[in-house]
Amino acid sequence: MSAGTIYGLGLGPGDPDLMSVKADRLLRGARHVAYFRKPGRSGQARKIVNGMLSEGAVEFPMEYPVTTEIPVTDPRYNQLLSEFYEAAAAHLRTLADAGEDVVVLCEGDPFFYGSFMHLYTRLRDLVPVEVIPAITGMSGAWTATGTPITWGDDVLTVLPGTLPEDVLAARMAETDALVVMKLGRNLDKVVRALKTAGLFERAWIVEYAQMANQQVSRLSEKCSGVTPYFSIIIVHGQGRRP
Amino acid sequence: MSAGTIYGLGLGPGDPDLMSVKADRLLRGARHVAYFRKPGRSGQARKIVNGMLSEGAVEFPMEYPVTTEIPVTDPRYNQLLSEFYEAAAAHLRTLADAGEDVVVLCEGDPFFYGSFMHLYTRLRDLVPVEVIPAITGMSGAWTATGTPITWGDDVLTVLPGTLPEDVLAARMAETDALVVMKLGRNLDKVVRALKTAGLFERAWIVEYAQMANQQVSRLSEKCSGVTPYFSIIIVHGQGRRP
Repeated sequence: MSAGTIYGLGLGPGDPDLMSVKADRLLRGARHVAYFRKPGRSGQARKIVNGMLSEGAVEFPMEYPVTTEIPVTDPRYNQLLSEFYEAAAAHLRTLADAGEDVVVLCEGDPFFYGSFMHLYTRLRDLVPVEVIPAITGMSGAWTATGTPITWGDDVLTVLPGTLPEDVLAARMAETDALVVMKLGRNLDKVVRALKTAGLFERAWIVEYAQMANQQVSRLSEKCSGVTPYFSIIIVHGQGRRP
Repeated sequence: MSAGTIYGLGLGPGDPDLMSVKADRLLRGARHVAYFRKPGRSGQARKIVNGMLSEGAVEFPMEYPVTTEIPVTDPRYNQLLSEFYEAAAAHLRTLADAGEDVVVLCEGDPFFYGSFMHLYTRLRDLVPVEVIPAITGMSGAWTATGTPITWGDDVLTVLPGTLPEDVLAARMAETDALVVMKLGRNLDKVVRALKTAGLFERAWIVEYAQMANQQVSRLSEKCSGVTPYFSIIIVHGQGRRP
């Protein structure tokens, strides 16, 4: 019996119609479907594929032991997550060793700040693993703004909002086009950094890009300071254009 | 009669199986298909969709009047391209005004360094235009390397190889993860900048990402100095991972 393959299946930004033809086909044919979620939640990845799973597909929710309850600087954070990824990888490996293919749902593109990467590095030398790239959340977000992100010689910088404020401001000040990911509770800090860098007035925020509840706003016109973790801030480049 | 819609249709990195479900459907149903190409060439975008156009689809190749024959700093470059985009936009507008939908093929993601943007800005206030995001060439490239591009708090910088060598080296030196686009005749300069920044040994080059002739090499092991314009250099981030 030959081993099954574990697919890191990029779902793209959220609209199932924006999944790749390949991802759509693999998903609809999958007998085993795994996905990450917070305990007690249905999980964004699983929601995206609602109604697309084959009858009798076996689901394997992988529940984060911790998300923001412990700071990432606490050694327990790393240990808890490491044990979690080890256990999830072990389960997927058991399925693959038994000849079963498994589709692991990944929001956005699997190799771009994705949780699947932590399974990938643990499995790649043990069983066949294939990664299906996808439309990134940031592509979904800049498309939603209706304005191109980079022109000509524009430099694009992608910053996680988790970085310190002074680092954010310095990086923002020297780029042409900007994407800020991982917002959520980092939003106020990111806003201050944008102001320091002189980019606040040019910044847009996209919440739930390419989903039914998508919201696109100028950051300066957004009233509430609360935004989902997967919101994305966009500052468009203004490079050469004939 | 209502106006037709002009679709900026992202094709993704090159494998038709990686087009979105939406792009695939729009393409197969399209009566008018426009695409950019160099004079005398079939054009990469058109090649990607070989065998996918409906019978009787009307093709509209838009041939660049100039690519690298005149430096971009020459005023004639801008003037020639501007006239070219004006003329192409006028033709598409005529079709849309006559009620016809038109699909414009775009390699990669339309809003990420794409030629379609120059049509988009000329048409968006005149006729309905819809942009279909796609998997970027860089996602295709980093997936091809088999290693994730960004982890945890990694900063990603995307640089066009067209920038001056000192600018490239300075930007490279301060990022965690790096993508360099627009290589071609800029390769030697980019290699020198990578060496100055201390990243040369960690750099990969992907040629024809996600196509049948895809080649993935460590840049330090690549023998020839010749590479296609659409090759992409990747330096992976090494951020936090539990």
